[in-house]
Amino acid sequence: MAKYTKRSEDYSKWYNEVIERAGLAEHSDVRGCMVIKPYGFAIWENIKEVLDKRFKETGHSNAYFPLLIPKSYLNKEAQHVEGFAKECAVVTHYRLKNDKDNRLIVDPEAKLEEELIIRPTSETIIWNSFKNWIQSYRDLPLKVNQWANVVRWEMRTRLFLRTSEFLWQEGHTAHTTRKEAVEEAELMLKVYAEFAEQYMAMPVVRGVKTESERFAGADETFCIEALMQDGKALQAGTSHFLGQNFSKAFDVKFADKAGKLENVWATSWGVSTRLIGGLIMTHSDDEGLVLPPKLAPIQVAIVPIYKNEDQLNAISKKVDALRNQLQDKGISVKYDDDDNRRPGWKFAEYEAKGVPVRIAIGPRDLENNKAEVARRDTKEKEIVDWAGISDHISNLLTDIQENLFQRAQTFNAENTTEVDSYEKFKETIEQKGGFISAHWDGTIESENKIKEETKATIRCIPLNNKVEEGKCIYSGKPSKQRVLFAKAY
Amino acid sequence: MAKYTKRSEDYSKWYNEVIERAGLAEHSDVRGCMVIKPYGFAIWENIKEVLDKRFKETGHSNAYFPLLIPKSYLNKEAQHVEGFAKECAVVTHYRLKNDKDNRLIVDPEAKLEEELIIRPTSETIIWNSFKNWIQSYRDLPLKVNQWANVVRWEMRTRLFLRTSEFLWQEGHTAHTTRKEAVEEAELMLKVYAEFAEQYMAMPVVRGVKTESERFAGADETFCIEALMQDGKALQAGTSHFLGQNFSKAFDVKFADKAGKLENVWATSWGVSTRLIGGLIMTHSDDEGLVLPPKLAPIQVAIVPIYKNEDQLNAISKKVDALRNQLQDKGISVKYDDDDNRRPGWKFAEYEAKGVPVRIAIGPRDLENNKAEVARRDTKEKEIVDWAGISDHISNLLTDIQENLFQRAQTFNAENTTEVDSYEKFKETIEQKGGFISAHWDGTIESENKIKEETKATIRCIPLNNKVEEGKCIYSGKPSKQRVLFAKAY
Repeated sequence: MAKYTKRSEDYSKWYNEVIERAGLAEHSDVRGCMVIKPYGFAIWENIKEVLDKRFKETGHSNAYFPLLIPKSYLNKEAQHVEGFAKECAVVTHYRLKNDKDNRLIVDPEAKLEEELIIRPTSETIIWNSFKNWIQSYRDLPLKVNQWANVVRWEMRTRLFLRTSEFLWQEGHTAHTTRKEAVEEAELMLKVYAEFAEQYMAMPVVRGVKTESERFAGADETFCIEALMQDGKALQAGTSHFLGQNFSKAFDVKFADKAGKLENVWATSWGVSTRLIGGLIMTHSDDEGLVLPPKLAPIQVAIVPIYKNEDQLNAISKKVDALRNQLQDKGISVKYDDDDNRRPGWKFAEYEAKGVPVRIAIGPRDLENNKAEVARRDTKEKEIVDWAGISDHISNLLTDIQENLFQRAQTFNAENTTEVDSYEKFKETIEQKGGFISAHWDGTIESENKIKEETKATIRCIPLNNKVEEGKCIYSGKPSKQRVLFAKAY
Repeated sequence: MAKYTKRSEDYSKWYNEVIERAGLAEHSDVRGCMVIKPYGFAIWENIKEVLDKRFKETGHSNAYFPLLIPKSYLNKEAQHVEGFAKECAVVTHYRLKNDKDNRLIVDPEAKLEEELIIRPTSETIIWNSFKNWIQSYRDLPLKVNQWANVVRWEMRTRLFLRTSEFLWQEGHTAHTTRKEAVEEAELMLKVYAEFAEQYMAMPVVRGVKTESERFAGADETFCIEALMQDGKALQAGTSHFLGQNFSKAFDVKFADKAGKLENVWATSWGVSTRLIGGLIMTHSDDEGLVLPPKLAPIQVAIVPIYKNEDQLNAISKKVDALRNQLQDKGISVKYDDDDNRRPGWKFAEYEAKGVPVRIAIGPRDLENNKAEVARRDTKEKEIVDWAGISDHISNLLTDIQENLFQRAQTFNAENTTEVDSYEKFKETIEQKGGFISAHWDGTIESENKIKEETKATIRCIPLNNKVEEGKCIYSGKPSKQRVLFAKAY
């Protein structure tokens, strides 16, 4: 099999090759829409399962709202329409027909009175429902989540990172007080951050967006930002405090205990299939995909090495017991005894698929009561005694998960630079990339100029920021804290 | 709370009231699209969980294909386009803009070169991918499933039963031989039938559709048909043997072991949120929703009856232990100690929500070490000793599940009528409804005439049919078996 393009040569080409060889996804004929292949979708299912459980533990219920949104809804919240109208798919007709030459055309008589938008996000249609669901403080808090597909018509698309259609979850909540809504937005950011670090093994910076980077319709956007291996940042999840913007736009009020009517306070928050792009770019290497064990569809692949059926049978019998032991520990195992493929092909396949641990066992191993165990992250191999091998594997998976996180954290630390001059800033963005921590005067003007001149944007104002007197790298005006810049996906 | 409309008075009105009071779903402002509310969605999640597990056990993987399908794809399979072009949502533009009067309009400059259809079903887009995934017999069988939303522009809609957008799963498989594909279609029908009977407690007839009722593009459509309380049939699931229709339309061939190229054989199969409509109509009564325990989001509701905080604390302490015991058995419990609502309100609420078992416990019960246990299906109440109550509840849930199935089966038996004359047929359809088992000559002409004159359609030719000489009730021509007629949803 041909080698991968090296990351250092062409990161973008490497990224596409990793996805293709692992069988994660592919472009469809429809502009910017991808097909998520079974192996890629299995990763998404693992992500969903963990997050869904956390959402429920934190008091949210799933529901489902319509895919199609009347055009006029979008128009109700001024900033929101500004943010989404320019990139939405519009349904104008509800029927096709054959013309006189028997060509399939849109039936002009089946024109909708009001055009419908395919949801780019569901605030508007959900708040239109919330209006009927909320009357009194007794109905609050209302905490709903939806797993859904959304469409944003993107001109430049990349598999997982930016596609016209993508899968995501969107949480939407309503509260009696501003304080409670802000706490909810912060809580969900915490859920996302912990998921990113503990499951994806992807370190993130927790922060808030500047005004110009906020969600269209939010008063505050919290975010988690991760650093990819090419020094570019990836916005991995956002949680918005929406204030009363949508409750005012859709006239959603509740009666408090004294019977007084007030607009409710709102949040929304989401993560998407983009996370899979982050997962790929955080861990994978020049030999293909590397997956953290906690999200790997196959955690352990076992490959028998044999010359005849007797040998295979003897190995299979032995492996059966191990497989049961591992499965009892909740470890997902694939025993690959497909006779159509050679062991070398299988080794390459599981390497490309980022399977964390591969076990090979042949007649010699059988004799010696041993097996060869290879880990994907460091590519180390060892010969392991069969006795106690299941505990060994279980510990190894924990080690790999930790190692991937440590490795990524070290990378982040090495690629986060404090700079105090615009010269140094430009030089760092140009030559090294990564996160740049620098003072900023808080104005949109400086932010825009820096973006124009360097393509770096303010990824966030970190939540753990300390107060520090300084001068804006661009304007020289006084600043009280550093913010985090980077070029971003 | 006002009583429900009685089923005998207005079944359709009753159906809507049950859905509304249980908080299952509601109409949205978008024509024919529904909002599935949290409680309704929780039922769908339970359905999904069971089916998804069965699909995986039978060797299928989930994947995800684009929502939007190029118009030309639909045109590739002649029957398919015939079946779906007349009711599809068409995307023609990808941007909105403000006109000079600042109104939000479709941007005429953002017109798509080729219109896109929102998937009504995904055969075409999936077979377009399969073309790239299948080269040799080694790639087969290919067994993929997708959980997704689809849109079919329906003129008359009813919550869950017929909506313009609905949620479903669609399995799509490719095989080397006709035999294997037919077996797959039959296997998935079995999975559906067992799910309907063992989880939904809804008896079904397994059968095949007549040619005129087949899926657009199928060589054979297998189905499960259920009987609702108003004597109308509900098609609850279908599994299609697609022959080589789609593999020919999309030119999907595989090399067999000898290297010879052949078109693959295909199936597709699906069930949808329509199942929730079937669930409601099979079991619910004039006091609202009744749910089979295996799919109930809340299996046991516990309501404390108290006059002061001390009493509540004592009850809560006692209930805590029971709750743990029940949860350890995998039983979902809601302990409702909401102080804003009175016990009577709660009783009515859990009745309306179809919660299978309700436990009430007050200070007197505490003293006597007992509790009142009420079952939703028969509305029977009993006083149960606290010792061993968790086993009692567990057994009771099993009883309720069985009772619901038995009750529905008895109803089906009583409402399935064998008739041998057209007069009797018309009389039965008119006065009694239900399934009618009658001889049919096998022609589309007789089938259409019967449909025209009585609104009854052939639901299926039952799979377990015995050969029996007879005469078509319509034409009097000879017939070798009975088929099942009914008016249907």
